[in-house]
Amino acid sequence: MRTLAEILPRLQRPQDLKGMDEGQLVQLAAEIRRVIIDTVARQGGHLGASLGVVELTLALHKVFDSPRDKIVWDTGHQAYPHKLVTGRFHRFHTLRQTGGISGFLKREESPHDVVEAGHAGTSISHAVGLARARDLRGEKHHVVAVIGDGALTAGMAFEAMNHAGHLGTDLIVVLNDNSMSIAPNVGGLSRYLTQIRTDPAYTRMRAELERMLEQLPRVGPQALRWVQRFKDSLKYLVVPGMLFEALGLRYLGPVDGYRLRDLIRVLESAKAMRGPVLIHVITQKGKGYAPAEGDPWTWHGPKPFNPATGKMEPRRPGEPPAYTAVFARTLVELAREDPRLVAITAAMPDGTGVATFARTFPERSFDVGIAEQHAVTFAAGLALGGFRPVVAIYSTFLQRAFDQAVHDVGLQRLPVIFAIDRAGIVGADGETHQGLYDIAYLRPLPGYVLMAPKDENELRHMLKTAVAYEQGPVAIRWPRGTGIGVPLEEPRVLPVGRAELLRAGRDVALIAYGPLAYAALAAASLLAREGIDAAVVNARFAKPLDEELLADLLATTGHAVTVEEHMLAGGFGSAVLEMAARRGLKARIRCLGVPDRVVEHGDPAHFRALFGLTPEGIAQAAREVLDAAAPVRRRAGG
Amino acid sequence: MRTLAEILPRLQRPQDLKGMDEGQLVQLAAEIRRVIIDTVARQGGHLGASLGVVELTLALHKVFDSPRDKIVWDTGHQAYPHKLVTGRFHRFHTLRQTGGISGFLKREESPHDVVEAGHAGTSISHAVGLARARDLRGEKHHVVAVIGDGALTAGMAFEAMNHAGHLGTDLIVVLNDNSMSIAPNVGGLSRYLTQIRTDPAYTRMRAELERMLEQLPRVGPQALRWVQRFKDSLKYLVVPGMLFEALGLRYLGPVDGYRLRDLIRVLESAKAMRGPVLIHVITQKGKGYAPAEGDPWTWHGPKPFNPATGKMEPRRPGEPPAYTAVFARTLVELAREDPRLVAITAAMPDGTGVATFARTFPERSFDVGIAEQHAVTFAAGLALGGFRPVVAIYSTFLQRAFDQAVHDVGLQRLPVIFAIDRAGIVGADGETHQGLYDIAYLRPLPGYVLMAPKDENELRHMLKTAVAYEQGPVAIRWPRGTGIGVPLEEPRVLPVGRAELLRAGRDVALIAYGPLAYAALAAASLLAREGIDAAVVNARFAKPLDEELLADLLATTGHAVTVEEHMLAGGFGSAVLEMAARRGLKARIRCLGVPDRVVEHGDPAHFRALFGLTPEGIAQAAREVLDAAAPVRRRAGG
Repeated sequence: MRTLAEILPRLQRPQDLKGMDEGQLVQLAAEIRRVIIDTVARQGGHLGASLGVVELTLALHKVFDSPRDKIVWDTGHQAYPHKLVTGRFHRFHTLRQTGGISGFLKREESPHDVVEAGHAGTSISHAVGLARARDLRGEKHHVVAVIGDGALTAGMAFEAMNHAGHLGTDLIVVLNDNSMSIAPNVGGLSRYLTQIRTDPAYTRMRAELERMLEQLPRVGPQALRWVQRFKDSLKYLVVPGMLFEALGLRYLGPVDGYRLRDLIRVLESAKAMRGPVLIHVITQKGKGYAPAEGDPWTWHGPKPFNPATGKMEPRRPGEPPAYTAVFARTLVELAREDPRLVAITAAMPDGTGVATFARTFPERSFDVGIAEQHAVTFAAGLALGGFRPVVAIYSTFLQRAFDQAVHDVGLQRLPVIFAIDRAGIVGADGETHQGLYDIAYLRPLPGYVLMAPKDENELRHMLKTAVAYEQGPVAIRWPRGTGIGVPLEEPRVLPVGRAELLRAGRDVALIAYGPLAYAALAAASLLAREGIDAAVVNARFAKPLDEELLADLLATTGHAVTVEEHMLAGGFGSAVLEMAARRGLKARIRCLGVPDRVVEHGDPAHFRALFGLTPEGIAQAAREVLDAAAPVRRRAGG
Repeated sequence: MRTLAEILPRLQRPQDLKGMDEGQLVQLAAEIRRVIIDTVARQGGHLGASLGVVELTLALHKVFDSPRDKIVWDTGHQAYPHKLVTGRFHRFHTLRQTGGISGFLKREESPHDVVEAGHAGTSISHAVGLARARDLRGEKHHVVAVIGDGALTAGMAFEAMNHAGHLGTDLIVVLNDNSMSIAPNVGGLSRYLTQIRTDPAYTRMRAELERMLEQLPRVGPQALRWVQRFKDSLKYLVVPGMLFEALGLRYLGPVDGYRLRDLIRVLESAKAMRGPVLIHVITQKGKGYAPAEGDPWTWHGPKPFNPATGKMEPRRPGEPPAYTAVFARTLVELAREDPRLVAITAAMPDGTGVATFARTFPERSFDVGIAEQHAVTFAAGLALGGFRPVVAIYSTFLQRAFDQAVHDVGLQRLPVIFAIDRAGIVGADGETHQGLYDIAYLRPLPGYVLMAPKDENELRHMLKTAVAYEQGPVAIRWPRGTGIGVPLEEPRVLPVGRAELLRAGRDVALIAYGPLAYAALAAASLLAREGIDAAVVNARFAKPLDEELLADLLATTGHAVTVEEHMLAGGFGSAVLEMAARRGLKARIRCLGVPDRVVEHGDPAHFRALFGLTPEGIAQAAREVLDAAAPVRRRAGG
């Protein structure tokens, strides 16, 4: 079965596809699958989505003329085949590595990457804008958005279709329907698409009914409107996509996503039509790789694996558990005690740990689809109804529900718990997935309590603390990846707004928010060797701050370094600066965090070192804040 | 025509409606209209939406048993009739005034106010949460969401319907279709609803077709699927709401929103049904007040007016122009020079000034509906297509598009201009409309330029500056209301990141962001009388800060007060604190802004005084920051 790559290495640009016959395209598809599987097997990445759209990608690039025609991919992790046919085969082995090519689309990588997107549901909006820009300039090229059926559950995709239907501009939306987002889809829309997909009578009915329709008399405006309506009604038999037609998009399909000839034909028809068109293409996640076809959840974004066997690398023995796993386990424990606890995810049951909770409490867990806005306001409704909802979400995706956090939860002081995973530097997923803004956008909201645990054990305590806190919303942030490896205790309630002094010290206070507390402790050891006596604080709360402890430490040491994995603007450090200014404290404070720049994909350790978020970096900041002060504070021997 | 209020003053609670006959309800409706018109005529407020739903409100409270049954109103400004029948008649004259009842729903005002909402499109999500909470508790009450057709264009409403259809929980959605949001609706959905509404054949067809359907043979699972489909297809003739049915909601309607008997009957039927139901009610904005019926835009939220004539109070002679008007006029001027300029609004063409632009440049202006997410990403698409889109939006509504500002505009450094109106304390609209978070959530985003003009003339320069800036997104914030009254100059490009020194001074620097610069100047005059020599800076940019000028001033004066109309957490003042900490400056800095609390509806002057955002408040802060320093810095005579 193994096809040696023969066509792909020589493919310079998508125009090279124009002259290929179907046999060559089929071979090319096999080569693309092989390269994707081998690359992801070696270094991890997204697999299922890209394998599903190999033929669709080839058909798109054969029919359209990129980059003159604009192909807008929703969520770039489905676009590996697109990368391979647009001149990135020879760099593809650097996928998602520091300095290598991105796992998503990237405009600076290629003129064929029209838009960058790691969050789902944006493509139709971008495409409507591009189409309208084209119209205003009097240009003639085509604009195509490729969007998954999961991404279509995002409200903004609906907003965009509604606007496209209103404008009537020429636009092609390719609905890549694999009946999955990352998890199986939920929602009325999904059931509707399934009806269309699975109706066995559909194919043989269609031709016959089209003939019937043609035989009905054409009616003029003077004729009874209901005759027209009867035709519309019959059309519903022929056109299963009445939902899209109602919004003003012409529906074509469904089309088998692996029959190149059909794909090319339907794309050519759409190209000739005026106004917005939606093409419904049926695909399968993981297509062409048996293990992935059988388990699309696991193979959405696998860790490195053996491509021959489909075996993934086992967890290293002795490796600490992931924060997500500890969160999920703790949530189940707490839910046993408290029947009010319910959990909500927006299409990320596995990534967030809600899947674990759902196995024990299926009735008390909710996957709402890629619909973060609804997830948060739905949680608000559950809280109004007396429950304690936990919205388990990645930091970057909570951005989608900011107004709901402000308006539907915060202003009403509803006790919704935000369990914010992937807060901080995320690594290979890169800039669209960094969780670097959540402190800044949540801290100004009155009534919010913000926490970050120093380790996976404290995460357990914080979750219990959040459940015990009835007065308003609580947000807990923790990073991607494994914990510190500390023993897990019975969860207990922590005093809200109280920090933990990990180490007393006279010269400088190292104040950390989150697991960087351990780096701060290590920095204190380094400093001790130089005779600098550093206090170390695990802040626990960004809001309310432990003003008493922090003000006392600032007064006694006169020098502080704040440490967080978040943007410096408006982050935890700013909370400390604001407090010190309000209290008129004279301490010198240096803030460590992420400076005003985009953090690309790559090894988190690389970026942490770059930003000084390491024991040595923290120690260096402490030396600098002390050196800047006069007189010199170093004492020989401490 | 004038009906004296007779029933309303004696109405204690909605249960009192149960025993009323239709004649009494009709009289009550007239009384409610009279009270609303008279009250809004006296003090301004929202008018059209509430007048449209008087009968609907009475029918809801007659059929359902609030507060046991939960009636969730989307956007509380349509809920004045609800307030009047739930015990707030005698306080209604205090509407929207400091300490008076809110112009929106408010849980602390009444147990009948289930949810608070000033942003559109949230009600179905809240209702699904409440319904699910009820199910989990094994309770039996009803949950009803009342949502306008405009609010239905919000993506989150779609997300919520999709989830409701999936859950299949008992839930009634009342679609209050007045074919308007604030402006006439846009979008394919709107056209679809209009088709349903206006089909004259509909009524007489319906009964006949229902009979036809009943006569078709019932088919078992073994029968051909297409017979069932044919029946479904015929059903489309009978059930015009196939779009909602496709999402899994049963559709009832359309119903005339002013035929109480029909309204009550359809609500009673819905009450008896299982699963989610959508009732399509046809209403008219401003119903029962002729001037408002004829011009629903103007009468959405009128200023005080003469109820007999419908004449609104004229603008006071010599009153400075509103910031919005200056923005709109400047945008038109700049667009004449630059064909790339286009303007986008999310259903607020009048409020944002885009309506003015649209009169001159209809092709270059876009109203996308209540769809802020799409508005911003659509703008990103236009920018990718070579245009310079201006998203004209209120600060509070931009919260809906935060992720789009991060992910679709910011990460790609697209030159989208955010024209942020109503930034700061908004007054009578209250907590859901305060524009107090935008600096905090935009400042951490790499590549953004943030500005605030000190007056309406500088707004012109800043708009020109934004258009000239090609490297990335720009956000300009300005407050609600009238400008300072300064002469308007020809717009010119300001140097990005450079502040303006309004007054030199040796003792303390007053650093203002936005029109509070004038209050800071006045404070400097107060201080001068006491011999304190205050420098005054119009910061112009919150990002990038004019570090050179500010650092120099902090070094020379050693004392500063920052002034802004924004939350203190993460605001402009924090930017100054962060800069001072990074540079190791020793100055004492005091930040003035909004403390960590919700700002309710009421006179903005009241709140500004409370927060020290007045000449006296700023002067007092300057005195305090100077007093805290030793030795005393006051000099006799300056």
